[in-house]
Amino acid sequence: MKSFRKELWFNIPSRRGLKNITDTVENLVKESGIKEGLVLVNAMHITASVFINDDETGLHHDYEKWLEKLAPEKPYSQYEHNGYEDNADAHLKRTIMGREVVVAITDGRLDLGPWEQIFYFEFDGKRDKRVLVKIIGE
Amino acid sequence: MKSFRKELWFNIPSRRGLKNITDTVENLVKESGIKEGLVLVNAMHITASVFINDDETGLHHDYEKWLEKLAPEKPYSQYEHNGYEDNADAHLKRTIMGREVVVAITDGRLDLGPWEQIFYFEFDGKRDKRVLVKIIGE
Amino acid sequence: MKSFRKELWFNIPSRRGLKNITDTVENLVKESGIKEGLVLVNAMHITASVFINDDETGLHHDYEKWLEKLAPEKPYSQYEHNGYEDNADAHLKRTIMGREVVVAITDGRLDLGPWEQIFYFEFDGKRDKRVLVKIIGE
Repeated sequence: MKSFRKELWFNIPSRRGLKNITDTVENLVKESGIKEGLVLVNAMHITASVFINDDETGLHHDYEKWLEKLAPEKPYSQYEHNGYEDNADAHLKRTIMGREVVVAITDGRLDLGPWEQIFYFEFDGKRDKRVLVKIIGE
Repeated sequence: MKSFRKELWFNIPSRRGLKNITDTVENLVKESGIKEGLVLVNAMHITASVFINDDETGLHHDYEKWLEKLAPEKPYSQYEHNGYEDNADAHLKRTIMGREVVVAITDGRLDLGPWEQIFYFEFDGKRDKRVLVKIIGE
Repeated sequence: MKSFRKELWFNIPSRRGLKNITDTVENLVKESGIKEGLVLVNAMHITASVFINDDETGLHHDYEKWLEKLAPEKPYSQYEHNGYEDNADAHLKRTIMGREVVVAITDGRLDLGPWEQIFYFEFDGKRDKRVLVKIIGE
């Protein structure tokens, strides 16, 4: 069994924002030399997500509006966590979107459906944050 | 390390619907010959989910009603994505229910708790869609 | 490839409650002797979650309040599942929080970000329930 590890660093210039990381992860799969296996891609921070969906701008706006409805940023006073910080909503939004994805590797490539794209979703940005890519297989 | 891959195809005759795929996945684990490992089961489409919960009809009705409350299908005009399509709600519902499950394989069998059942959950049906089963182990 | 399996048992004395299981999982990784791989940690019951987030009491209170807003326990009559039981809300809350986490193992340790902690989240307690830890790697 082989394994491969790499950290990806991001600094999203706004509080919230999306970044398509599919090609980056695909290149790491190639670099790993692993032909059959699994890749884990997870946010290493607890106010960000890695998720898979469509790369369509309208849908991304819908996500922003929908997450604000389910877990509003303001008023900050509605959350106990905000006695320490102002980002309780970021923890909740990330919970909806998920921490991680696990993707199959087949014939040395990401084994994704036709519209599946991997995204980093930042909910408390303007600083350096990390994603972990771990690949195991042969 | 051994690996095994199979696609499952579904055509759910309504917009939304559930299908228990536990036995199908269990049979693929047997077919793979893998005794110890992990199986990844993921929707390959971004308007469908694979999830684990109870095979109880009342609960399935509760899921339908609850998801409609959290991410209503109509009016279509509430979603920007629907400028292109009419299935924005399906992307959001699938986000709540999740894309994938990872299940342990022990002694050549799915290592599930007593009530755990694996389901395909369709949110934009009436067409052929796929689930990926990828197994790695020994 | 090596594999390792262990069940963790919990009896949370209230209907809902959280338990930090990071050190327990870390010790199992050491016990497994696996240096590079993946660990799957999943609830074996369908009214409980395993998730990763911050070990901060204010945030945990926010989760409780937020989950009650998204999937209220009462009135029990609002859920069809409660014709058989009274825990439909527990199935829905667990769906939001997730069934499982997959964490990388690097150099014989959990490869977590600085604030990542693994929790068991009980939504229908006062009885013995299990979590599965399955490790594969080398």
